[in-house]
Amino acid sequence: MQTNPMTATSTAPQLTSALDYFRQSAGQWQSQRVTHHLAFRRAEVGESEIQVEMLEVTDPRLAEICQMYDIDPAAAAGGALVTWKSLMAWDASEEDNHEGQTVMVIVPDATDDRRGKLLRERGYAETAPVAGEYHLDEEGGMVLTTEYETMSSVERFWFPNPNLRMRTSVLKRFGGFNTATFCTEVRVGCDQSAVAAGGDREQAISALGW
Amino acid sequence: MQTNPMTATSTAPQLTSALDYFRQSAGQWQSQRVTHHLAFRRAEVGESEIQVEMLEVTDPRLAEICQMYDIDPAAAAGGALVTWKSLMAWDASEEDNHEGQTVMVIVPDATDDRRGKLLRERGYAETAPVAGEYHLDEEGGMVLTTEYETMSSVERFWFPNPNLRMRTSVLKRFGGFNTATFCTEVRVGCDQSAVAAGGDREQAISALGW
Repeated sequence: MQTNPMTATSTAPQLTSALDYFRQSAGQWQSQRVTHHLAFRRAEVGESEIQVEMLEVTDPRLAEICQMYDIDPAAAAGGALVTWKSLMAWDASEEDNHEGQTVMVIVPDATDDRRGKLLRERGYAETAPVAGEYHLDEEGGMVLTTEYETMSSVERFWFPNPNLRMRTSVLKRFGGFNTATFCTEVRVGCDQSAVAAGGDREQAISALGW
Repeated sequence: MQTNPMTATSTAPQLTSALDYFRQSAGQWQSQRVTHHLAFRRAEVGESEIQVEMLEVTDPRLAEICQMYDIDPAAAAGGALVTWKSLMAWDASEEDNHEGQTVMVIVPDATDDRRGKLLRERGYAETAPVAGEYHLDEEGGMVLTTEYETMSSVERFWFPNPNLRMRTSVLKRFGGFNTATFCTEVRVGCDQSAVAAGGDREQAISALGW
């Protein structure tokens, strides 16, 4: 295993299972989102509030979802109830899901706790249930790949610190990349963990110069 | 090494050294950028054009930069000339570096080709030269950590396919996270690799539901 630079330079939590990710995600988050539409060269920004609540492994909703996927409920390690709400008025007219709730179930591989399946009540893109495949990477991230009938998504989640959560997502459709999304999520009540420093100069800082 | 999901579901190039990253980056790119200011909950978008040109290892500019860092020029594996130009008029007044050029030098570790130092002419944040530390991760990404005097940045670059390049960057200042930046870069002339598909529905697709 390589040195984790996120950990070396920050207070990134050490997470060793997908369940850890959900536990670390538990609580209320303010999320800033951008979606880059690749073909249109258009960026759309959004803001939402997200609540993540852990569910006991004995919660009957978990068994119900497992059965939907023909998976033995005893294989589930835990679950979470996720609620989200857009904070931007126009989202309500543009999107179907400006507000919603879903239950997710974590099913680790029998032989490897660092990878497994993520089940949820329903997919947004397809009516058939679709299980995502996750694994934890060596950099402290969780990578989640979901193959739908006509599209696939690759998402990566990580915590630069316990109160800051990030996600990138690329969506591929009919063989081509379609959209790239980036979310920055700050735990509600923890804004002070981010130090305000002056000006626009910081945004320009990149070792690669652009 | 784990299975690379990016590769499994895409045409992500196999890159085994930082030099590969620069070679793969060579050419002209249209870049969409967003910066999330964490304390202000403000998002700033930008668009720029980037040109990356490989430099011969014998290029005298490489040796010059190595000397600036007290590094033996013979240790350099190669370099690149990066030119960028903002495509948004207002950037010119807001940022000092709406247009610029820099030379970078790759100095791999003597014992490990997957990690090393990235040198450049000068840092934006500090006047003293600052070397970034890079390593290639198991997911096909390059992670670059740069420690400045009063701040540090962690960047990650990856290619979902040869004509699509992404970058995330988090900037930490005085112990707190300050900004998070995301860039989506499409090779100029390759827009067709991104398939346009209808509507706002896609942006909502996330296995985690938000």
